[in-house]
Amino acid sequence: KKRFNIALLPGDGIGPEVISVAKNVLQQAGSLEGLEFNFQEMPIGGAALDLVGVALPEETLSAAKQSDAILLGAIGGYKWDNNEKHLRPEMALIYLRRDLKVFANLRPASVLPQLVDASTLKREVAEGVDMMIVRELTGGIYFGEPRGIKTNENGEEVGFNTEFYAAHEIDRIARVAFETARKRRGKLCSVDKANVLDASVLWRRRVTALASEYPDVELSHMYVDNAAMQLIRDPKQFDTIVTNNIFGDILSDEASMITGSIGMLPSASLGVSGPGLFEPIHGSAPDIAGQDKANPLATILSAAMLLKYGLGEEKAAKRIEDAVLDALNKGFRTGDIYSPGNKLVGCKEMGEEVLKSV
Amino acid sequence: KKRFNIALLPGDGIGPEVISVAKNVLQQAGSLEGLEFNFQEMPIGGAALDLVGVALPEETLSAAKQSDAILLGAIGGYKWDNNEKHLRPEMALIYLRRDLKVFANLRPASVLPQLVDASTLKREVAEGVDMMIVRELTGGIYFGEPRGIKTNENGEEVGFNTEFYAAHEIDRIARVAFETARKRRGKLCSVDKANVLDASVLWRRRVTALASEYPDVELSHMYVDNAAMQLIRDPKQFDTIVTNNIFGDILSDEASMITGSIGMLPSASLGVSGPGLFEPIHGSAPDIAGQDKANPLATILSAAMLLKYGLGEEKAAKRIEDAVLDALNKGFRTGDIYSPGNKLVGCKEMGEEVLKSV
Ligand SMILES: CC(C)[C@H](C(=O)O)[C@@H](O)C(=O)O
Ligand SMILES: CC(C)[C@H](C(=O)O)[C@@H](O)C(=O)O
Repeated sequence: KKRFNIALLPGDGIGPEVISVAKNVLQQAGSLEGLEFNFQEMPIGGAALDLVGVALPEETLSAAKQSDAILLGAIGGYKWDNNEKHLRPEMALIYLRRDLKVFANLRPASVLPQLVDASTLKREVAEGVDMMIVRELTGGIYFGEPRGIKTNENGEEVGFNTEFYAAHEIDRIARVAFETARKRRGKLCSVDKANVLDASVLWRRRVTALASEYPDVELSHMYVDNAAMQLIRDPKQFDTIVTNNIFGDILSDEASMITGSIGMLPSASLGVSGPGLFEPIHGSAPDIAGQDKANPLATILSAAMLLKYGLGEEKAAKRIEDAVLDALNKGFRTGDIYSPGNKLVGCKEMGEEVLKSV
Repeated sequence: KKRFNIALLPGDGIGPEVISVAKNVLQQAGSLEGLEFNFQEMPIGGAALDLVGVALPEETLSAAKQSDAILLGAIGGYKWDNNEKHLRPEMALIYLRRDLKVFANLRPASVLPQLVDASTLKREVAEGVDMMIVRELTGGIYFGEPRGIKTNENGEEVGFNTEFYAAHEIDRIARVAFETARKRRGKLCSVDKANVLDASVLWRRRVTALASEYPDVELSHMYVDNAAMQLIRDPKQFDTIVTNNIFGDILSDEASMITGSIGMLPSASLGVSGPGLFEPIHGSAPDIAGQDKANPLATILSAAMLLKYGLGEEKAAKRIEDAVLDALNKGFRTGDIYSPGNKLVGCKEMGEEVLKSV
């Protein structure tokens, strides 16, 4: 029997609910494939702030680092929204990503045939959308120095951040993206703002230089403003997208909404070595927390990504993916993806239905 | 008779075609309201590069500065896409905005009942969308220093830009936005990334502080990633949006595509004093340039904005707006907004139809 240590970080809002459901599914899929998991649950975000006064406690970080993979729920909530920056739940996520060195954030966005009507896009535009956004996650304006707010020589307050990319940071995320595209439909679109930003000029230059190593991948470039349009005009044109941290933040949320089911979308954050971080794309949804209304499928599918990308256990991953499709085919729907003719279920019941098919 | 000097900057691609049509409409609307225009046409962008070797010639800049208002076509094209940065057509636009000090970029995005089916969004989602994006245009990461590409101490290339906002820059754009919202439906949404960026923390703080001066305006805040989602999920929730230069670039293009007719959307860029800059949101579309296929309505509507915001001539502006609706009601459509049952026309014929109704 193979054994793995999994760090569970439920976090805030609906985090605990969806993690508890996804944990059961993960355990079941693993045990059917001869895997044994040792789960360690640790506080993070607002929950940790309330408990011990910091958003990312030392113990949580070191448990995460020592694990084989990390499954995270969601972070943040109204309650802490006016905290000083260093006491904000979101900072835990930013620092966790940095300290785990998970520079490559994979965000699939596809429209399932079962859910095509959940999109606000017309059926013929949404149908068949299947893209992967590769977002750089540990660099750029999220981390660049100098940053801050200060009073300048005229006594006026100024706020500033630094968009910064070193060649090796661009190269390593570009390689992940080329490899990803190669395993998909062989098309890679690099998104930047090279007509204005110097950092983007370097980005485009480095990505272009790597293309010759991947002759089987067709590389194109697009400005970020155009990409934001094209995602709505004709999302099917995209296979794999690679972009920097902030553009990836914006475009992946936009893309997720195109699928009409942000409650369905998982993500994987990977480094060169060490444990990967797996989490749903959605937030902590404090308005429905604790009401058994949350859609657990994004977290369940994140557990599938954990198996596939984090542990290399493709068979167990496939079990989960198939079980999710099964539950959808049987007509089970949480509120966010409900349409007439289907069966409305809560978070727990959806989890049980998936569990039955694992 | 009132006289005005209008600088016409046709630029590249379809720019000359749409400007020539819009000029006629402007002249006609003006003369019916007792206005006389003295037009001065000057090269800019790629056209200027080819002609005199710089994208923004001195003569063009000074003609623009001495005018009462500027009508610009479009800038850029494949031909110059691999130029060094200082020889890129787009730089002309960036420098023109900066030198004219037009810090407030107004970008309306509304779905006309006549064109609701041109949107890729479902009818019930697109119908009735009517928002105004107020984008800061002369600050932020577009202009912040330091910027560049250099080799660091390890011999590695690094690229960097600076997102920078001083309090007064935020205050003045926020005031324009509050005033704009006040004249519309009284709702202002400020978009930032205050959970990560220090510049956004200052942004949010300054905008919030001004709110008490506009008690009739309802202010809300939204993170940029969420805004990119909400624009697709439910664009009708927005009235006026205010945001920084780069987020405004991305979100206004996204919003324009929601209306399904980027060929319809005008923009106005205004400073404290001095001439305003009026231009369609769309680009130079080199693929259809010179084929009489371009939609001139965005530029015609930019001429209407020029009359209204640039010269304070609301009556003449209204003539143009009404004439555009008239041409649409009669079923005239350029290719980009064509749907069966309507009359497909070229750029010139569309211009003539509008002219008839001015
Ligand atoms: C919560 C926030 C800091 C985070 C980010 O901006 O990266 C989130 O939006 C995301 O995309 O995971
Ligand atoms: C052409 C480009 C430099 C410009 C910008 O980024 O501002 C354009 O995208 C716009 O929005 O007007």
